[in-house]
Amino acid sequence: MEESAHRRGDKKVVAVVGGGLVGALNACFFAKRGFEVEVFETREDIRKAKVVKGRSINLALSHRGRQALKHVGMEDKIVSKGIPMNARMIHSLSGKQSPIPYGKKGQYILSVDRANLNKELLTEAETYPNTTLNFDHKLQDWRAETGLMTFARPDGSKTQTQADLIVGCDGAFSAVRKQFLRRSRFNYSQTYIPHGYMELTMPPRNGEFAMKPNYLHIWPRNTFMMIALPNLDKTFTCTLFMPFEEFEKITTGDEVIEFFQKYFPDAIPLIGAAALRRDYFRLPAQAMVSVKCSPYHIGDKCVLMGDAAHAVVPFYGQGMNAGFEDCIVFDEIMNQFNEDFSVVLPEYSRVRVPDDHAIADLAMYNYVEMRAHVNSKWFIFRKHVDNLLHLLMPKTIIPLYTMVTFTRTRYHVAVERWHWQDKVSFFLLLFNFPL
Amino acid sequence: MEESAHRRGDKKVVAVVGGGLVGALNACFFAKRGFEVEVFETREDIRKAKVVKGRSINLALSHRGRQALKHVGMEDKIVSKGIPMNARMIHSLSGKQSPIPYGKKGQYILSVDRANLNKELLTEAETYPNTTLNFDHKLQDWRAETGLMTFARPDGSKTQTQADLIVGCDGAFSAVRKQFLRRSRFNYSQTYIPHGYMELTMPPRNGEFAMKPNYLHIWPRNTFMMIALPNLDKTFTCTLFMPFEEFEKITTGDEVIEFFQKYFPDAIPLIGAAALRRDYFRLPAQAMVSVKCSPYHIGDKCVLMGDAAHAVVPFYGQGMNAGFEDCIVFDEIMNQFNEDFSVVLPEYSRVRVPDDHAIADLAMYNYVEMRAHVNSKWFIFRKHVDNLLHLLMPKTIIPLYTMVTFTRTRYHVAVERWHWQDKVSFFLLLFNFPL
Repeated sequence: MEESAHRRGDKKVVAVVGGGLVGALNACFFAKRGFEVEVFETREDIRKAKVVKGRSINLALSHRGRQALKHVGMEDKIVSKGIPMNARMIHSLSGKQSPIPYGKKGQYILSVDRANLNKELLTEAETYPNTTLNFDHKLQDWRAETGLMTFARPDGSKTQTQADLIVGCDGAFSAVRKQFLRRSRFNYSQTYIPHGYMELTMPPRNGEFAMKPNYLHIWPRNTFMMIALPNLDKTFTCTLFMPFEEFEKITTGDEVIEFFQKYFPDAIPLIGAAALRRDYFRLPAQAMVSVKCSPYHIGDKCVLMGDAAHAVVPFYGQGMNAGFEDCIVFDEIMNQFNEDFSVVLPEYSRVRVPDDHAIADLAMYNYVEMRAHVNSKWFIFRKHVDNLLHLLMPKTIIPLYTMVTFTRTRYHVAVERWHWQDKVSFFLLLFNFPL
Repeated sequence: MEESAHRRGDKKVVAVVGGGLVGALNACFFAKRGFEVEVFETREDIRKAKVVKGRSINLALSHRGRQALKHVGMEDKIVSKGIPMNARMIHSLSGKQSPIPYGKKGQYILSVDRANLNKELLTEAETYPNTTLNFDHKLQDWRAETGLMTFARPDGSKTQTQADLIVGCDGAFSAVRKQFLRRSRFNYSQTYIPHGYMELTMPPRNGEFAMKPNYLHIWPRNTFMMIALPNLDKTFTCTLFMPFEEFEKITTGDEVIEFFQKYFPDAIPLIGAAALRRDYFRLPAQAMVSVKCSPYHIGDKCVLMGDAAHAVVPFYGQGMNAGFEDCIVFDEIMNQFNEDFSVVLPEYSRVRVPDDHAIADLAMYNYVEMRAHVNSKWFIFRKHVDNLLHLLMPKTIIPLYTMVTFTRTRYHVAVERWHWQDKVSFFLLLFNFPL
């Protein structure tokens, strides 16, 4: 075992556990403040890896995420490699496509490539001379009293390092969080939804996107649904969401085609029947979990951020955005309390827990809405009414989706306001407010 | 390491992890069916121990628990050492005492001594020749594929044993459950309530109970409350429930007396001022957790029961009763499916999860009701109305408390019925049904 010193010189050491999206971004935030930053990542360096395993291929970047990237000077670079999506594009069973805008004209979310974003963030973190990236370091254990961490290396050896602050950004199955679970009065829940997801690729058609690119395509089918996001290489990544039992019922290529024929007939020629028959069986459907916990800190030594603190189901497109916003919120509290961890950490838990719980609940709510209600005339009517009311009274009525996606309104405030607005707009409708 | 064989002769081996209340009772259930039963308990044999540490001193035994004890021929023995409590006895601030019966005449719950009950159950389990009790065995790890368990012994050595079925009855902080948490699609939540509890003893007065013995005494004080249960030695165990911050505010003996003077003046002479000043600081307030999870099984090898599956807050007096009923429900399903673990275990999860979740929610609901509403005239009026309606229409209106406490109505059915009855009795009140 080797041991590295903490507080190198007069700089405090911040260990960021996890070199995924939130970990890499957070490293930049802490490096910018002048801390000695050490990032520890279980996997090898994805920039050198041949096959990158893991989570979904593309993500929807919106305002909160962009603000965080802006803070470390990365917004333009990332946005330039994203594809704007101005509206949902609803595919009916008959193949009819109807757009529902996300917000006002000019408001859009961005389809970004997860792997590329992660690589760019790691490279950016490395530009800070006070940051070191340590790959192939799997956290085995850590002590809340001392900040001492033990990592396992691929050769079976162990390394120990001590830090003044441990920032757990190691995802939904966080190793850092395990220590929290052993302590009294830590509230925790993990909820798996009955649906799994499967990704399928829709190739380009004659060198162009096979469908209109500037949309998030949705095939809502009540108990299940498919969505598609555009990629820079002119493919779409289609994600099929369906209860695990339904996935398991389909066991042959013929059954795949039969299933798509019944529910997504317009997608068959676009994905290709042969590819469908093959790719459906490439990987089993993946599980989705919603994790909530509180508090996010232990003493003045450790704090959880990103999915480690609040994994959400993907139906509001806010998982990464919420994780990125964590970095800003923490940074704001660091300013407020002069980087005094003993005050900053409890304050961060106090401020951030209700917002993360709110977005977790909203994502769960949208899990039903996206596949079941998006279809209904009432939903479409309400979306139009909300957008119209927003146009007429831009400061009074702000659609929930707008608050969540295009502002930094605290998530829990957005939810409270939504409930209030819902009542108000009901009355406006009732009394025939001039629409 | 030594290793014990499984399937001794043609008997399947059932390992019960945990020799607490549910573990010891479950051992009797499995032994009765003819399995080779091995009980593994972390602590030493409490029948030989000088100081028994652990959970609260007394418990409320009611119908479900009694039915389970009856199944293994222990009901009379345990009931004879319990003290019947026919009603709640509400202590107002002025010291006035008002009884609210638990049910009809002759219906009562029993105050039983936890340590004695546990000892009796262990002794009963040992009467089966096919049962072995292994104390000082702390579960370290187990394999869901093989049923192989590794235990740590006090001398630092390790033992391995294999079983056909592992029954995790090892309480709210279950070591068996840790393995479940590592698996995908296991739903889990642990919620600590803001209240802690502290036990204080009210000694006998002139050789007799200091208050009327056949009652569960309650001092409801909105944000906090105290309860007292009678013991065979003519003491009462008083339990003070209060938010942790409030506990922490009281730091001197004078402040304890001042606090009791303000909220529980009638209890001071009964507990004794000197004892109060001393005992308040004997132990810190203890936390209370509500644990829910699902499913309760892994494959055909392991199942969770009792607090390991569903720790509840103590406000419905059903923690032990629900755990004991688990044993009956499992036993019934064993009959139904001829002890085929591969069918019995999933069926047990399917049947029991909704009931355990219902009682966990009810206990949480009562956490508010007991300390806040019990005080109100409306609550007392409703209790009387419910009891009266029950008398008039015994098959139509059954108070929730009666269904939970004096029947084996499935918990989730009791809750559904309660919601329905609530509407019905509201209308009966509204239309002046002849009361």
